Amino acid sequence: MQIALLGGTGDIGEGLALRWGHDTDHDIVVGSREAEKAEGKADEYNAELADRGVDAAIAGRENPEAAADADVVVLSVPAYYLADTIDAVAGNLDGSVLVSPAVGMKRDGAGMHYNPPGVGSVTQLAAKSAPDDVPVVGAFHNLAAGRLADLDADLEWDVPVVADDADAKSTVLDLAEDIDGLRALDAGGLSNAAEVESLTPLLINVAANNDGLHDLGVKFW
Amino acid sequence: MQIALLGGTGDIGEGLALRWGHDTDHDIVVGSREAEKAEGKADEYNAELADRGVDAAIAGRENPEAAADADVVVLSVPAYYLADTIDAVAGNLDGSVLVSPAVGMKRDGAGMHYNPPGVGSVTQLAAKSAPDDVPVVGAFHNLAAGRLADLDADLEWDVPVVADDADAKSTVLDLAEDIDGLRALDAGGLSNAAEVESLTPLLINVAANNDGLHDLGVKFW
Repeated sequence: MQIALLGGTGDIGEGLALRWGHDTDHDIVVGSREAEKAEGKADEYNAELADRGVDAAIAGRENPEAAADADVVVLSVPAYYLADTIDAVAGNLDGSVLVSPAVGMKRDGAGMHYNPPGVGSVTQLAAKSAPDDVPVVGAFHNLAAGRLADLDADLEWDVPVVADDADAKSTVLDLAEDIDGLRALDAGGLSNAAEVESLTPLLINVAANNDGLHDLGVKFW
Repeated sequence: MQIALLGGTGDIGEGLALRWGHDTDHDIVVGSREAEKAEGKADEYNAELADRGVDAAIAGRENPEAAADADVVVLSVPAYYLADTIDAVAGNLDGSVLVSPAVGMKRDGAGMHYNPPGVGSVTQLAAKSAPDDVPVVGAFHNLAAGRLADLDADLEWDVPVVADDADAKSTVLDLAEDIDGLRALDAGGLSNAAEVESLTPLLINVAANNDGLHDLGVKFW
């Protein structure tokens, strides 16, 4: 399967690229607004994986080219850039599944707060911004980027996945399970996305307020 | 320490009464709108604990009498009855810490959704409804009542706790840790309560949508 990580040069995109590159045979393409930046980051990821004996051959391309041949397109960009990023690749999404991991948050003196857009959640904003025939799946909202990108770190995290399209949801559940240590869970439809996204500021607040806890994910049991 | 569980005749109240009765020496008082119902439930809990060799001496009283001598008063009532319950005991809360575990939710065809009151969260509604000098702490929102009340079940759950009053928060963090298998975590101030409460519909949705999962709690790591 070919996976494009738009905005894959930073944060959650780096972690997903390294994990899929390390744990699977999927073709990974890092996308960016600048081709040169995407290529540079892809080289970095390939070098890190080569050190571990993995020939991942991750490619780097401008976002629209990264999306063009992908089966799954992950919007690993900040919520603020989500709609613009979808607009930039909209013509190249035919037949793809679009994945939204972004969370809208605001910080004040009391910590992090969930700050959803008017449609209810960032995942629903992605669905609203996407072409009508492109299914949108919410996933990977609650992964701490630092630990995800550290291939020496064990994960043992759950990944709640939401979507209205059953086939697209199934594809992304499988892709999440392909990463060692992740358990993918069906958390409902797109209208259930706000509860998944809300978990991210909670994880950040718990890490900030309790000694010895950092880079937190979640396990349901 | 004396703990009153208002609405302690059902749901989360039963579980907390049994767990504190079993695992600690705290004095537990079950409160209800009807003294007879409270006494009947207290008798049930005492009988179950006696079967396990524990003499807990849980008492049952009408809500205002249950609150009167308590150091900690837990509002284990549905969100809908929260303000009325606080009003009924307001004159008896002097020197007490008020604990709010309720979550506002609504269900539709897609599952459970977080449905907070206008002030942002049920915990903040409790704070608004309480007398000014009574500190309010949000805790125990995410405990599955069925497993909590089953003394044969291991928990290993986290309990995010939110409050603006540091002493009251500390008291409730300790009370949560007194229950075997619960780890209490500081999740911030009252303005961070919505993210804690939102986790409950997510847990319900995950349990509903995934085979083999039920009565879920959460562990951060």
